[in-house]
Amino acid sequence: MVNETQHTCSASSSSRSDGGSSSGSESSKDNSRCSTPVLDADRHERLREKMRRRQDAGDKWFSLEFFPPRTANAAVNLISRFDRMGAGGPLFIDVTWHPAGDPGSDKETSSMIIANTAVNYCGLETILHMTCCNQTKDDITGHLQKAKRLGLKNIMALRGDPAGEEWEEEVDGFNYAVDLVKHIRNEFDDYFDICVAGYPKGHPEAESYEADLRHLKEKVFAGADFIITQLFFRPETFLKFMKDCQAIGITCPIIPGIFPIQGYHSLRQLVKLSKLEVPQEIKDVIEPIKDNDAAIRNYGVELAVSMCRELLDSGMVHGLHFYTLNREVATTEVLKRLGIWKEDPRRPLPWAVSAHPKRRVEDVRPIFWASRPKSYIYRTQEWDDFPNGRWGNSSSPAFGELKDYYLFYLKSKSPREELLKMWGEELTSEESVFEVFTCYITGEPNRNGYKVTCMPWNDDPLATETNLLKDQLEKVNRRGILTINSQPNINGKPSTDPIVGWGPSGGYVFQKAYLEFFTSSEIVTALLKVLKKYELRVNYHIVNVKGQNITNAPDLQPNAVTWGIFPGREIIQPTVVDPVSFLSWKDEAFALWIEQWAKLYEEESPSRMIIQYIHDNYYLVNLVDNDFPLENCLWQVVEDTFELLN
Amino acid sequence: MVNETQHTCSASSSSRSDGGSSSGSESSKDNSRCSTPVLDADRHERLREKMRRRQDAGDKWFSLEFFPPRTANAAVNLISRFDRMGAGGPLFIDVTWHPAGDPGSDKETSSMIIANTAVNYCGLETILHMTCCNQTKDDITGHLQKAKRLGLKNIMALRGDPAGEEWEEEVDGFNYAVDLVKHIRNEFDDYFDICVAGYPKGHPEAESYEADLRHLKEKVFAGADFIITQLFFRPETFLKFMKDCQAIGITCPIIPGIFPIQGYHSLRQLVKLSKLEVPQEIKDVIEPIKDNDAAIRNYGVELAVSMCRELLDSGMVHGLHFYTLNREVATTEVLKRLGIWKEDPRRPLPWAVSAHPKRRVEDVRPIFWASRPKSYIYRTQEWDDFPNGRWGNSSSPAFGELKDYYLFYLKSKSPREELLKMWGEELTSEESVFEVFTCYITGEPNRNGYKVTCMPWNDDPLATETNLLKDQLEKVNRRGILTINSQPNINGKPSTDPIVGWGPSGGYVFQKAYLEFFTSSEIVTALLKVLKKYELRVNYHIVNVKGQNITNAPDLQPNAVTWGIFPGREIIQPTVVDPVSFLSWKDEAFALWIEQWAKLYEEESPSRMIIQYIHDNYYLVNLVDNDFPLENCLWQVVEDTFELLN
Repeated sequence: MVNETQHTCSASSSSRSDGGSSSGSESSKDNSRCSTPVLDADRHERLREKMRRRQDAGDKWFSLEFFPPRTANAAVNLISRFDRMGAGGPLFIDVTWHPAGDPGSDKETSSMIIANTAVNYCGLETILHMTCCNQTKDDITGHLQKAKRLGLKNIMALRGDPAGEEWEEEVDGFNYAVDLVKHIRNEFDDYFDICVAGYPKGHPEAESYEADLRHLKEKVFAGADFIITQLFFRPETFLKFMKDCQAIGITCPIIPGIFPIQGYHSLRQLVKLSKLEVPQEIKDVIEPIKDNDAAIRNYGVELAVSMCRELLDSGMVHGLHFYTLNREVATTEVLKRLGIWKEDPRRPLPWAVSAHPKRRVEDVRPIFWASRPKSYIYRTQEWDDFPNGRWGNSSSPAFGELKDYYLFYLKSKSPREELLKMWGEELTSEESVFEVFTCYITGEPNRNGYKVTCMPWNDDPLATETNLLKDQLEKVNRRGILTINSQPNINGKPSTDPIVGWGPSGGYVFQKAYLEFFTSSEIVTALLKVLKKYELRVNYHIVNVKGQNITNAPDLQPNAVTWGIFPGREIIQPTVVDPVSFLSWKDEAFALWIEQWAKLYEEESPSRMIIQYIHDNYYLVNLVDNDFPLENCLWQVVEDTFELLN
Repeated sequence: MVNETQHTCSASSSSRSDGGSSSGSESSKDNSRCSTPVLDADRHERLREKMRRRQDAGDKWFSLEFFPPRTANAAVNLISRFDRMGAGGPLFIDVTWHPAGDPGSDKETSSMIIANTAVNYCGLETILHMTCCNQTKDDITGHLQKAKRLGLKNIMALRGDPAGEEWEEEVDGFNYAVDLVKHIRNEFDDYFDICVAGYPKGHPEAESYEADLRHLKEKVFAGADFIITQLFFRPETFLKFMKDCQAIGITCPIIPGIFPIQGYHSLRQLVKLSKLEVPQEIKDVIEPIKDNDAAIRNYGVELAVSMCRELLDSGMVHGLHFYTLNREVATTEVLKRLGIWKEDPRRPLPWAVSAHPKRRVEDVRPIFWASRPKSYIYRTQEWDDFPNGRWGNSSSPAFGELKDYYLFYLKSKSPREELLKMWGEELTSEESVFEVFTCYITGEPNRNGYKVTCMPWNDDPLATETNLLKDQLEKVNRRGILTINSQPNINGKPSTDPIVGWGPSGGYVFQKAYLEFFTSSEIVTALLKVLKKYELRVNYHIVNVKGQNITNAPDLQPNAVTWGIFPGREIIQPTVVDPVSFLSWKDEAFALWIEQWAKLYEEESPSRMIIQYIHDNYYLVNLVDNDFPLENCLWQVVEDTFELLN
């Protein structure tokens, strides 16, 4: 599906099972049948299974660590970063636990909510860190229950730093990470995948390196599934540690923690906290360039790349864990140079899937939210079942209210002043609104010299893929057909097509042409006359803010507008035009006029009244051309409408 | 889907809703969503609703009455007749109730079982007659419960003929049809649609015509949904009756019973039973030609056509009910001349749908039973849920055992002697078996001069549609690739295509090429080598009678091989190659070698041992070419295999 925004959030598409490759397997009558076509094995596997499958297949992978942000604005930025870095195909990300920052709360910046957003809205497999010391059993259980409720499936079990110097073991308390591991297994059985920390140089507080290895073994034997290590500076440190672990019987995956040096001060701070010593050869390079950030980062990237290469070449390492410090550039650079950053991750479905276990069978969505996938996830978060195969099968068709249009992960990234520059400090007529839409489409600056890079319905600039439609879109927007969503028809392109492809390779993808826009009642009247000529070919839904609805859809059935045919699988139809959910989308689409645009202006101001007029009087229209093998007729429909009006 | 048998049983496809025609309808948020794409409204409507919809649409329709046969052989023939006459598109058929013939029993010839077969195996909307006099309440309730259990939804409530002359009313007994109507409504609420009989000349035992009209009104007010009339000879008789009914407040549909005169004796007998008088003008024509059956039938057809025309032209009649006397020719002729016989009924799905209410959402089946749809229905009759949308969603994947291969509706229409002539009185080698398959494909007589018109896996001659594949099929069968099912690939033909089309108009249908055959282990070994070259393109399942199974299907998922894209609807994928059900089909396909073929010969005879050898040692193979837009590669696969063997 191509629509008027970029697919930046195509996360969790890091790997897939290609059709027809498991040849010669024996099977019997007793094999269980799967109830849903497994397009993307990742969605159905636990993290530890994904790790094992990657290792068995000889695939190299990476993961990314982030810490929770301090402010709501920083949270919005971090989530954009999840989307961008998620596109590179990490096996998982993890979010650290900051006891001082109310980590289990519902604040936008808490560890819990950031992890929740990563899983549910960015579709990333996520590990939530959790520390146990100085906490009651009830607190910990409460956090774990909440994590489970939010769809989190993986916990990194840590002791955490004792508060104050004179920390003492509590009898029956949570004194060590192993206590937390045991508690999780006792209370939640096998629900969570558990990760624990390993210290290649030994924990600074351990009696000895050997004693620390024994502690690690205890954690694993208590139920941990894999180990992520503290950072280290030399590959041989890790490889020795790994051999020592194996020697005492630790057989689970051990993932090296990689810290690309990104600056002098961050390195010093980290070293202080972790009580590690920086090797002399590194100090020798860094000290002379300590005030040159770029030079240090370049060196850090070099160093990390060479260390990672050595680790991967050893044959003992399959995945690399990166301490990102919430920054993108250095880690991305290292990953690209190692060749494990997915430049063009294949999409398992045309839209960004969520990683919540409840949504693992979800494979159909209405097209309307194509540019607002996070809003769709938010408004369907209370659903217990998600449509699988057919949209109509969803047993919970009620959409949640979307009252808070500034919910932090739906918030526009642009501040009010910028929006005013883009959408007009002062509107003088409906035509000045048409102009804003037209500038968004063309990418040309508006009359005040500002480019329109987002719209209330599209938070991102027009996708390059939509350029083919640009001329047509410009023409119609200029005349008051204010488009907010569209896709061309496609008659069987390979599923590997770089622009419109999705799903496993060897398949074919199809689309019906789609066009969605706001327009005046005058144009709607003419349009309806024209549509009579296209009665058997074009399905339409035309609705105003009051819910007056005109449609020719038979029996309110959904119309599949994107589908794919794959080797050895049932047909997947991930996008539908659904008459019923269109009415929920209508509420949201009309409200955005007011909430995002009209409210930029003073009450009673002419600008505000113009937007209010459009909100009150315009119609939201969608059109589907059912004859996907023929040339898209929707432009002709619009042209005929304009002709009729002249 | 085209396979190696004719689609004679494409019943109940008499009408459909064409996409995108209900324009301008208002709808609101509260409208309920349908959980399955309604391809064929008929499947979801009650008979009375179908009648109303046809009347509202101004469609004329017909229905057919049959009586239960005396012998099992006659039952097999009657069911073939249901298939053939069902193809003409009756709105329903009805089966009369013969108290003397144990009508509620499980005998192959009982009214109950014949009606059951019509509904479930021929997919015909069916009314079961039921009489009440001289029966206990418990008997009647038992019959009704059984009818409901079998999926019958319509009852014609009759009094029946009292046994003996001195019949007297019983207090609290079932003395009149109205008692039965009340009983059905009391005990079964609104479950059944109820039909009652009307007498255009008044019931022979009624005190008067007017009194009889009042009785009819009582039956309607007690809960009958519509009326079918006794036969009559003059259109004005019916039209007067209808006006009189309306005058006293009977508003339900009244369907005239049409009796095309088919012979002198049958007319006399009917007249005697019904106590009707044949008008003089008819007697005058018939008496002189009473020994000329053909002449009488021609006259009967003329008479019926002109009477039906007058009824339809009156504007008061929308449907015609035919007393067929279990014969085809006269009724079919009348219907064709009236123009209400559907010459080319459009199929709602590629396979014959069942009319059992439990199966109303069923829209996916495995391809394996394509030539044995009745067997498929039989083996899935215990399922509570049927797959809707996706095969994998079926919650009851267990197939019933098929022990009785001569279950009457699965019985071969040909007697043993004929089968021996077709399949060989004496087999001398595996090659003589290849020859039988080849003759079936080519239609050429075998070495003894007999045509092979059926096979154990295909009860009908090769479909004309398969002629395109004939040359290829002949070549491979001659060399020991014994084909039993195949379909070509189709890349988007109109749904109205006369050969491969199905579903509502305005859509496009697709197929993946499919080939299924028995072959020797030697050929399988070569085939597997060849298939390595086609690994990403061709999915295969290869299994022997012991269940050893070789496949490259990913995760045992079903492969959709027939699908359709329609205006304003979700995608329909009615046929799949399902790895799990293939193993159930395998049991049936192998058993047919023995049950239908080997058992024609003496035990220990060489002929029997050859079939037994094939049964024990051959493999059943299916191949799917996933690249449906390209030229079918399966013939190349087979050719490569033969080349490798040379």
